[in-house]
Amino acid sequence: MVLKKDIERRISELLKKMKAENIDVVLSTTFENSSLNPRYLSNFSGSFAYVVIAPDKQCICSDSRYWEQIKDQSPLELVKYDRSNASHILKDLLGSYKRIGYEAKTTTVSGFNELKEKVGADDHEFVECDEMINQLRMRKSAEEIESIKKAEEIALGSFTELLNEIKPGRTEKEMAAFLEYTMVKKGADKPAFDTIFGSGPNGALPHMFPTMKKVEEGEFIVIDFGAKYQGYCSDITRTVAVGEPTDEMKTVYEVVKRAQIESEKIASSSLSGKEIDKVARDIITAAGYGDYFGHGLGHGLGLFVHEQPGVSAMNEEKLPQGAVVTIEPGIYLPGKFGVRIEDDIYITGETNEVLTHFNKDLIVLK
Amino acid sequence: MVLKKDIERRISELLKKMKAENIDVVLSTTFENSSLNPRYLSNFSGSFAYVVIAPDKQCICSDSRYWEQIKDQSPLELVKYDRSNASHILKDLLGSYKRIGYEAKTTTVSGFNELKEKVGADDHEFVECDEMINQLRMRKSAEEIESIKKAEEIALGSFTELLNEIKPGRTEKEMAAFLEYTMVKKGADKPAFDTIFGSGPNGALPHMFPTMKKVEEGEFIVIDFGAKYQGYCSDITRTVAVGEPTDEMKTVYEVVKRAQIESEKIASSSLSGKEIDKVARDIITAAGYGDYFGHGLGHGLGLFVHEQPGVSAMNEEKLPQGAVVTIEPGIYLPGKFGVRIEDDIYITGETNEVLTHFNKDLIVLK
Repeated sequence: MVLKKDIERRISELLKKMKAENIDVVLSTTFENSSLNPRYLSNFSGSFAYVVIAPDKQCICSDSRYWEQIKDQSPLELVKYDRSNASHILKDLLGSYKRIGYEAKTTTVSGFNELKEKVGADDHEFVECDEMINQLRMRKSAEEIESIKKAEEIALGSFTELLNEIKPGRTEKEMAAFLEYTMVKKGADKPAFDTIFGSGPNGALPHMFPTMKKVEEGEFIVIDFGAKYQGYCSDITRTVAVGEPTDEMKTVYEVVKRAQIESEKIASSSLSGKEIDKVARDIITAAGYGDYFGHGLGHGLGLFVHEQPGVSAMNEEKLPQGAVVTIEPGIYLPGKFGVRIEDDIYITGETNEVLTHFNKDLIVLK
Repeated sequence: MVLKKDIERRISELLKKMKAENIDVVLSTTFENSSLNPRYLSNFSGSFAYVVIAPDKQCICSDSRYWEQIKDQSPLELVKYDRSNASHILKDLLGSYKRIGYEAKTTTVSGFNELKEKVGADDHEFVECDEMINQLRMRKSAEEIESIKKAEEIALGSFTELLNEIKPGRTEKEMAAFLEYTMVKKGADKPAFDTIFGSGPNGALPHMFPTMKKVEEGEFIVIDFGAKYQGYCSDITRTVAVGEPTDEMKTVYEVVKRAQIESEKIASSSLSGKEIDKVARDIITAAGYGDYFGHGLGHGLGLFVHEQPGVSAMNEEKLPQGAVVTIEPGIYLPGKFGVRIEDDIYITGETNEVLTHFNKDLIVLK
């Protein structure tokens, strides 16, 4: 549960960063939920808000649909947006500041033009501040970890129920829908993302959504799923066999499992994303499958299912203490099958805590 | 099913509009699926693409995750995006055109800066073209109506099953999750939006998402739901009673029902959104509930669950022939209950075709 003090701490850290970059005010806005920064800074979970953070003013502005909800969720002062002030509220809120931080990665060109027009482009400077907030969001606090742990528990409990339902003849779509339904019944806000349930050759397409294809005897199934709880995501993958796997399937499974376990073991704030990725990649390459592991080892996790930091060759920086990341090596043999095993871990410092409490030995469904 | 000829027709209509506005090329891009124009223009349903439309070039550019899918879904020429050309592909595709149309409402400031930098801001003019594509999208074609009809059928079949499941003691969340699960089992791509299931006083909050509140005897429940099929949405609301309603509840229900039926009956391309809204609003106002109908009567429906044209006081233009819109009056009595009844209709010209085949008499669940 995000408490008033958590929001206060986040804001005070943001204010420090703003000072360092000489930014007078930050405007954080929702855009079709493509930015969750407003939620991070205010705890408000609705779909429209301006969150304004300055040393002398911290407030949230939204329309009448959300006034009750904001009073309930957010410690920030509510500024009511309505027809009478819609044309000048941005000017009222931001006009007295010189350098205005805004989110260039989630503000649309139209939205930005409106902002400049309403506040007055000539008297102000508009500064991109995405990175500043992303940096804050990378380091998870106790209450965020608590929500992620609950999201893990719900997802894994539901996955256990799913294992009893997987049978030859049932469609991928039906099975994925059952898993999502079960997560919500167990208390998830919603699934953290569209579940992947790739059976047989479909498991070799890492991005593939569930189809009307039926599960068949002798197949591997890659199941990538997660729950959202109080806004926070879990993101887990297990690969299971329906009936007896071939020797090749067993071999590939063991390589992925070893890569997952070894890279997970060493992940800490002493290593970069690239270094951790390399541990898994070297194991898979040594086994002769290097060409079939086409994605990064992992990514950050929080309000969004993909956020910073990356655990891949692209990230040469050490992982920050407090980050939550996925560790998810995979091998995908086109036209045949795929194997991926994914846990979520919490970088506590020189070591990490595994948040996904679920066995990695191959499960063979009979 | 969207066919090659449908895409060709859409593109040829867009090319005409471009000519009229002196635009040489249009770039339509995905952004976290906040724009579905790329899908509209190419039939590709994945999450990353540049769709480029010019008189002499129509192509779709995406990365290796999607090459097979594009060959399967889209009649447009595939241009492969990869590491080797990522830095100059936008220049290659757009550099030879002078006036470049782009989507200001769904392109982020970062994305736009990248576009300008890569293509060269000095030699080109960038023109907002959102409205041009929205105008096209308003007029639905036969294949779009076919998909919407299937989305209606799936949603209503699932709603019928839900009616047997609603019992005092069950939570709003559980019931909404059951409905969504059933829609997917019946063949929906996914729910068209997060289902609303507002029982008792929660029904008076039109935007409220399902909570852990249990259904109680004597309550009204507002259920707003829809399926997505081949990308197209249905959007339906019915209000049902759990056990015997009070006289006030019955009175309010009948007012909303009359407002819905009368405004639906007259909706056509001869009237503006405002005029159709007024028919429903006048009935509700005359009955003394005008202050409790706080939203517009309806909105357009298609790939997005909310698109143009609006059926509200804000839209003084006549509805275009070919539009699909919702007709959804409501009365919300704070702290007590809400009633909303919503159908989807197809504006065929001087009249309309109701797409939602479901009774509007009050259903009392015993």
